[in-house]
Amino acid sequence: MAGPMLEAKTLKGFRDFLPDSMVPRQAMIRKIEAVFERHGFQPLMTPALEYLETLMGKYGEEGDKLLYRFEDHGGRQVALRYDLTVPLARVVAQHRAELQLPFRRYHIAPVWRADKPQRGRFREFMQCDADIAGANTAIADAEVLMTGLGVLEALGVDGAVLHLNHRDVLFAVVQAAGVVEPQRQIACIRAIDKLDKLPPERIADEMATEAGLAREAALELIDFFVTARGIHAAEGTENESDYLKRIVETRLQGEALERALAAIARTETVRQLVEAQFPGKIHFDVSIARGLDYYTGVIYETRLTDARVAGIGAVMSGGRYDGLIGMFGKEQIPAVGISLGLDRLLAALQELGLVARSHAVPVYVTVFGPQDAAAALEVAQLLRRAGLQVEVDAVGGKLGKQLERASKRGARLAILVGADEQAARQAVIKDLADGQQHRVGLDALAATARQLLDTAD
Amino acid sequence: MAGPMLEAKTLKGFRDFLPDSMVPRQAMIRKIEAVFERHGFQPLMTPALEYLETLMGKYGEEGDKLLYRFEDHGGRQVALRYDLTVPLARVVAQHRAELQLPFRRYHIAPVWRADKPQRGRFREFMQCDADIAGANTAIADAEVLMTGLGVLEALGVDGAVLHLNHRDVLFAVVQAAGVVEPQRQIACIRAIDKLDKLPPERIADEMATEAGLAREAALELIDFFVTARGIHAAEGTENESDYLKRIVETRLQGEALERALAAIARTETVRQLVEAQFPGKIHFDVSIARGLDYYTGVIYETRLTDARVAGIGAVMSGGRYDGLIGMFGKEQIPAVGISLGLDRLLAALQELGLVARSHAVPVYVTVFGPQDAAAALEVAQLLRRAGLQVEVDAVGGKLGKQLERASKRGARLAILVGADEQAARQAVIKDLADGQQHRVGLDALAATARQLLDTAD
Repeated sequence: MAGPMLEAKTLKGFRDFLPDSMVPRQAMIRKIEAVFERHGFQPLMTPALEYLETLMGKYGEEGDKLLYRFEDHGGRQVALRYDLTVPLARVVAQHRAELQLPFRRYHIAPVWRADKPQRGRFREFMQCDADIAGANTAIADAEVLMTGLGVLEALGVDGAVLHLNHRDVLFAVVQAAGVVEPQRQIACIRAIDKLDKLPPERIADEMATEAGLAREAALELIDFFVTARGIHAAEGTENESDYLKRIVETRLQGEALERALAAIARTETVRQLVEAQFPGKIHFDVSIARGLDYYTGVIYETRLTDARVAGIGAVMSGGRYDGLIGMFGKEQIPAVGISLGLDRLLAALQELGLVARSHAVPVYVTVFGPQDAAAALEVAQLLRRAGLQVEVDAVGGKLGKQLERASKRGARLAILVGADEQAARQAVIKDLADGQQHRVGLDALAATARQLLDTAD
Repeated sequence: MAGPMLEAKTLKGFRDFLPDSMVPRQAMIRKIEAVFERHGFQPLMTPALEYLETLMGKYGEEGDKLLYRFEDHGGRQVALRYDLTVPLARVVAQHRAELQLPFRRYHIAPVWRADKPQRGRFREFMQCDADIAGANTAIADAEVLMTGLGVLEALGVDGAVLHLNHRDVLFAVVQAAGVVEPQRQIACIRAIDKLDKLPPERIADEMATEAGLAREAALELIDFFVTARGIHAAEGTENESDYLKRIVETRLQGEALERALAAIARTETVRQLVEAQFPGKIHFDVSIARGLDYYTGVIYETRLTDARVAGIGAVMSGGRYDGLIGMFGKEQIPAVGISLGLDRLLAALQELGLVARSHAVPVYVTVFGPQDAAAALEVAQLLRRAGLQVEVDAVGGKLGKQLERASKRGARLAILVGADEQAARQAVIKDLADGQQHRVGLDALAATARQLLDTAD
């Protein structure tokens, strides 16, 4: 225990959540869990550490580099989990015999990425995922999306739009523009993903350099995406899927056309199912690309529309990944999921005034002196057994000091139990909001305290 | 995404918690959180990774070896947290200006130790701690102990005894037996800690070898501990603290005696405060030693008395550590805490039949065909908005197959929404417990479903 004084510090990109920030986070997490459970999802927990080979190669080259990896005491190559999706895929393959498919699970837990820390980006952050493994239907897609929108509804977020797309629609559109080679198609899609950030000319440049697309063709492709995105905002025009169908039908044929039409139809079905339950909250948006390699079907991002938080980025995203679980087992098992950005969502809630300031501890029991400790604890236990949150002063000293501590802790009520009260089996409740004192018998104490707490302060 | 098939496996000593085991775990954690909050504790979250120097040297030589440590991408020596107490000490020192003392925090999170895996011991396990930093009073000690006993009460565990001791009492007793050198005192205490596992002769041997105690003196010391432990079980004898006082008063003097008497008095005060609220649930037990180096005051372990779970070991333990926070800052800040063994407690609850089997998902909505998907989702959303947990069949196929899946999922009610029902704004509830069907208007659906779920099956 001896030694030089240590500096108390957190690693860069890592955070302590003190109660002031943790209480609203936890309240949010509990609401999310309740929504997930109402949608039939059940909790799963997986280890923070996985075999390195379980994670490697699932997140692209860039992701591999960001893995926190090391050799453990037994010489095994291990890594901290990078997301919750790959561990889920491992679990479904590993425990296939014990799980009944479709398997609906949610998982709220930290993940680690050795990313460059910057505003709003951390090396340790919570992911919050709901996935259905074992069903490749429009209902499965819609259920996951409705779960996500249900979370936003439960959190009181009104202005949110889910932008829905399909990986095959994206590829079909790029192919229809004359880009045939898969790597070039991906380069085009990566460029399109920057529509929000860069002017069209810059994107056309990138398409020319990275995908070998002629400048005119590139600008035409960009124009297509801009038009497609604008459709849901324009009145009286054809809808997105009709527009897309028209484009692919004139430019693709055979298997490519069939695949494109199937993807458009699936996306439109999912959109309609969700739209019926969440009117105006879902758009077919062909410009949504998503980065990760493993998506195979619908993909989506959710943005907040309130001007105060519109710059916050996607708060909820995901997609269908029918090939990932099969990497861990003999069986191909389709899956679809949604991931909520807890940090962004909480920041948005705070900006929108949807996070209530909490009383740290509503009831504070004072202790006159050592001889009164037993009586104070008795009263505290009585209130706690009635479900109230109670702190007993554990420092002592003059009553004035104790009441000061009670106020600083954000308490609404202070309880005083002097010798007279003890003899009469009573206690005094001091309402710190108005200074009024109420002398009550112990049998009525909890009810009176609760009544006072329920009145606005 | 190509490559050879991966083996899906967890690292040795690490576990997946599938819903069957995770649902009762989570229910237990939620109950514990509620008890912690009723006792004025608030949640704290700290990073999984800390600077290695923050953790090194706090857990003894053996602990240092068990740290999962590595060099991160920036060349920093880092380690996964080993417990939640040292991170708390760092937090209190680092955020001293933002925290109001006394600081009551709880923290429920995994910790990692590269220990040899064996039955009931894992390399990743949850700790569940409540601590008060900034108060060194008997009330602070008692509050923490009452919080722990409150958790057991809330979990329905009746037969539990908290064994309370004080580090200075232990040292005084050993010193009274003639062992003066601190390292030898510690060796003696380590030997005494094995009273439950080894016969007295073996312990006397260990004392002779490790602490240089004569065999006769060693047997006398062991006899003292055995007698002291027996006191709370014997009727009509003096109590533990009187017995201890008598021993130390005859054999110690000066400062050593004063320290011993102060420790006995403090322990007895805490015992009495807790005993008044939890009669019969706390004993002064001078044989409790606790391993960790950092304790400075009261120390305790809690054992279950029910014969069915008596062998499970300590389910809840901790102590006072007034020197730890000062290692990270200029200020010495006293602290006391309790830690619950989540795995052991859950195992005990299961053994005692206190874990109810859960319906995975109580309500299962069937889907007749693709044209009925929208109606099925509408009904599901209606029930979910009323707070019910609902899964929509996401696979399709014949109704019989869907009802089979509903049963396998543990659903109590299946909902059927055919064309006739849709036309009439109705749905059929099929009670899977008795096979009865109830046709209900959509406006009464949620209430009827809830009623049926509330009747025992």
